[in-house]
This record gives sequence, C-alpha cells and structure tokens, in this order.
Amino acid sequence: MSETTFRQKLTAASVRNESLLCVGLDPVVERLPAAMLTQTDPVLRFCSEIIEATSDLVCAYKPNFAFFGALGESGWRTLEATLEQIPPHIPVILDAKVGDIGNTAQQYARMFFERLGADALTVNPYMGYDAVEPFLAYGDCGVFLLCLTSNPGSADFQTLRVDDEMLYHSVARRAVAWDQDSGNCGLVVGATKAETLMEVRQLAPQLPLLVPGVGTQGGDLEAVIANGQDAAGGGLVINASRSIMYASSDADFGSAARSAAATMRGDINNLRQPATA
Amino acid sequence: MSETTFRQKLTAASVRNESLLCVGLDPVVERLPAAMLTQTDPVLRFCSEIIEATSDLVCAYKPNFAFFGALGESGWRTLEATLEQIPPHIPVILDAKVGDIGNTAQQYARMFFERLGADALTVNPYMGYDAVEPFLAYGDCGVFLLCLTSNPGSADFQTLRVDDEMLYHSVARRAVAWDQDSGNCGLVVGATKAETLMEVRQLAPQLPLLVPGVGTQGGDLEAVIANGQDAAGGGLVINASRSIMYASSDADFGSAARSAAATMRGDINNLRQPATA
Repeated sequence: MSETTFRQKLTAASVRNESLLCVGLDPVVERLPAAMLTQTDPVLRFCSEIIEATSDLVCAYKPNFAFFGALGESGWRTLEATLEQIPPHIPVILDAKVGDIGNTAQQYARMFFERLGADALTVNPYMGYDAVEPFLAYGDCGVFLLCLTSNPGSADFQTLRVDDEMLYHSVARRAVAWDQDSGNCGLVVGATKAETLMEVRQLAPQLPLLVPGVGTQGGDLEAVIANGQDAAGGGLVINASRSIMYASSDADFGSAARSAAATMRGDINNLRQPATA
Repeated sequence: MSETTFRQKLTAASVRNESLLCVGLDPVVERLPAAMLTQTDPVLRFCSEIIEATSDLVCAYKPNFAFFGALGESGWRTLEATLEQIPPHIPVILDAKVGDIGNTAQQYARMFFERLGADALTVNPYMGYDAVEPFLAYGDCGVFLLCLTSNPGSADFQTLRVDDEMLYHSVARRAVAWDQDSGNCGLVVGATKAETLMEVRQLAPQLPLLVPGVGTQGGDLEAVIANGQDAAGGGLVINASRSIMYASSDADFGSAARSAAATMRGDINNLRQPATA
C-alpha cells in the first residue's frame, strides 16, 4: 500500500494538468498507422507515442485489458511495458470489468493491483458485495462499479424497474453505502445517457464518475459536465479512446492525438463552472 | 469454426464418460502440495496431474482465468500449457465472466476463443445484448451467461424484483430469446440456490446450466439434479473446483482428486432419473 490514495492521485493529476480528460488505450493492430507495423512491438510503440503526446493533458489513462489480452502471450508484456510509459503521477484505471466470487476476486485484485500496479479497476457489480469487497479492501486503489453503461444493451437490464427506481439507481445506492466503509468507490456512467448523470450525481454526490462514450460513441459533453460534476466542479473522469488514439491513421498520429486531446480538454474546461475551472 | 458445436462436444463427453461433473481449475500457489513447488512450473504440473487423474470422469473442465492471470506474465503460458493437457474430446469452459461493449467484447472473444481455443466462456449479462452478441456470433462455441450465482452477494442485485419477477428471471428469459438465433447460450446458476434451479429450468427448458457451488460452497446435489436436469435427464454441468483439486494436500493429491471426482460423479449418476442415467 502506498501513502497516496487513488482519489488523491487523481485529484493531483487533474489539478496539475487542468484536466478531467482520461485517454483510453484500446489498441487494435488492424488500426495502427502503417509506420508502426515495422516496429518490434507495434502496439507498445503506438501506445507509447500516444502517452508521450498526451500526458500533460490528461487526468488518467484507461487501458482496456481485452485489447492486450487479444494479443495472446505477448500481450501481457506489452501491457506491462505500456504501463511503464505512463508518468508515475498519472493514475492508471485498468478497464477489465471483472466480477467473481470472493476467492476469485482476490486473484483478480492480485493480478491487476499487485502484478500490474493499476491505481484503479472497473468492476461489474452483478454478483454483489462479496464479489466487490476484495477490491474495496485495497483502500489505496480505486474501484469503479459499472452503473449505467454507454452501449445500447444497457437498456436490457440496467434500466429495468426495481421497486420504485431503476436497477442502476440501486447500484449507485449500494456503491455509496460501500464507499462509506472503504472510501474508494466510483461509478461508471456512460456519456450517451447524459441526462441520467444528474440522477446518479444526486444519489452519489461525492463519488468519482468515470464517463466513457464522449468520443466515437457520441455523448454530449455539455450535458455530461452540467449533470455530472460534483459540488466542487470536479468528480468526473471523462474518457475518450478511439477519437484520440485514431485521430489520424498516418505518421502524424501522435500530434493528431495531442490536438484531439487538447481540444477535448479545452472544451471540457470551458464547460466547467467558472469558479472551479 | 470447427464442424462440432460446443453442445455436441459437451454431450459426447458427457455420454462417453457417463458424467455431468465438471472440474474447475483454480490453482493457487499457496495451496499446492509441497512436492509441486520444486517443479519448473508448479501450477502446470499440478493441473496436469489433476487432469490426468480425472479426464475419464468428467464432462468438461472449467479453468478460471483469474488464477492464471494472478501469476503475471508466466500465467498465460501456464494456462496455454494446461489447456494442452486436456484431451481434445473434453470441452473447456473458460471462466472469465467478461462483459463489455461490442468492440471490446470482440477482443475478448478473440482472446478466449481464438488465442486460447476455449470451447465455451462465462459472460456477465449486466451490459446487455450488444455486449453478449460478439460471443454468440461464435456459433460453435458456448456462452454461459451469469444468471443466479452461488455467492451471498447474489442477493444484492440478482434477486431484486423487476416487474413481477426477479432480475435473474429476466436474464434467463433473455438468454432463451438470444439462444433462438444463436443456439449456443447457457446459464450459470449456483447450486447454493438449488430451489431456484427449477424456476430457471422452467424458463429455459433446453439451455445447458453450468452449476458451481456443490463442493466447498456446500450446495445440495440432490436438489440440483432434481430441479435442474432437462427433460432428457441431462443439461447440467455440475462444477466442483476446490473439493477436488485440494482433496489432499499431500503427494497423493492426484489419486485423492480422482477419488473425490469418482465419488461425485457416482453420486450425481445415482441421483439422475433412472431412465436416463
């Protein structure tokens, strides 16, 4: 356990870089610029350039485990090496959406928090408290529970009516309760459902919200910020992956990513409350 | 795509070995017999012996990805090498409980079905259809959706009342609907809630049910079979992990695992309907 918690590290990075922008790292070999393909480890080289081009513009990076796992055995090394490229003051939110019974969850915690050194992890809440608790037990790490996701299928279960609310409201309430003991809970709320961000913010006034879906998926940035920011004008981690990583498919992809990230950071900051921008 | 579907392979293995027993592979270094620790790859050696000792007694193996991932970089090789030890006629249900938006789910499908060659995968349904569809698209592979899990936390969300049923009923209904197109859906229903197996079986008469929780977790085998079997006296994949793998912590762990597996297989077969046993 380090002396700094995930939330402190996130706030410090956010203040230092004046940013609520998180860049997702979802590398797909087929989409890499041609110049990368001659490198020893094309995915590592690509991610390294994206990180180098954006690390003064972001509050966090969010590598998605699936994209590295899909590379097979070499993917683990590539992920580890990619994480080493991230400056130590920028928190890493590992996106793996895990969730399993306690003794298995402990193994995932070991994998992601200990072996890979992630600062935070996304966790699927469907299996309930004892599937989440082993992650919450790492008090210095962050645990983002899926609440209302950005995809169309979120309507299949997450918005079902349970008693007098929707399922994702129940998840938000539970997360707030669990956070009272652990202090390290957050929620994932998709930007494509920006109007619902206000409801989640009301249920969870103090929890950090990880908001995917503002880039390629088309979420409305203005509504995200108006509805999702906390009382201090923060509490948001706004993620964009493809719109930044693949801003250009040519050799200028690094500067294109920087430009896309700078634009989004600026747009976000212009929309934040003046008092706290 | 091979010419044999997961369901066909499962049925063939179940008939050949007269078994509904699935052995879970959840290796933890701290629990390995001392004799294993001097081996080059203790986890591989251990799993290989468990497989060798039980492969004529099971209908499937269920390696849990977390336990290999927790080993770090070497875990991938160990998992691959473990899978190679499983006879090709025994299906592998990879337990990873993944679930993410479509373009990410495609990467998990690539990782587990293509890179690792799993015959089936466990998938968390919380994100809805488009998070499941990329797995269903591998028609020859199996997709076990978490329905009602074996842990205490399953009461936090899975049994919440939605309209006039519970959330896990909704999951079962959706799985049946999705299966009509794909033909490769199954459900995970914990043995610790054996009375609910009858409800799920009524909602999903034809879907294979993966039932964890009969060993260490204490589920009632008799109720599992009475309530969970399909019209043909099958349709169940009854998993035990720790009660078999760690049946002995000494050098005789292989024969102890064989004995535990044979006992459980026999108990299951004695409880099946005579007409179909």
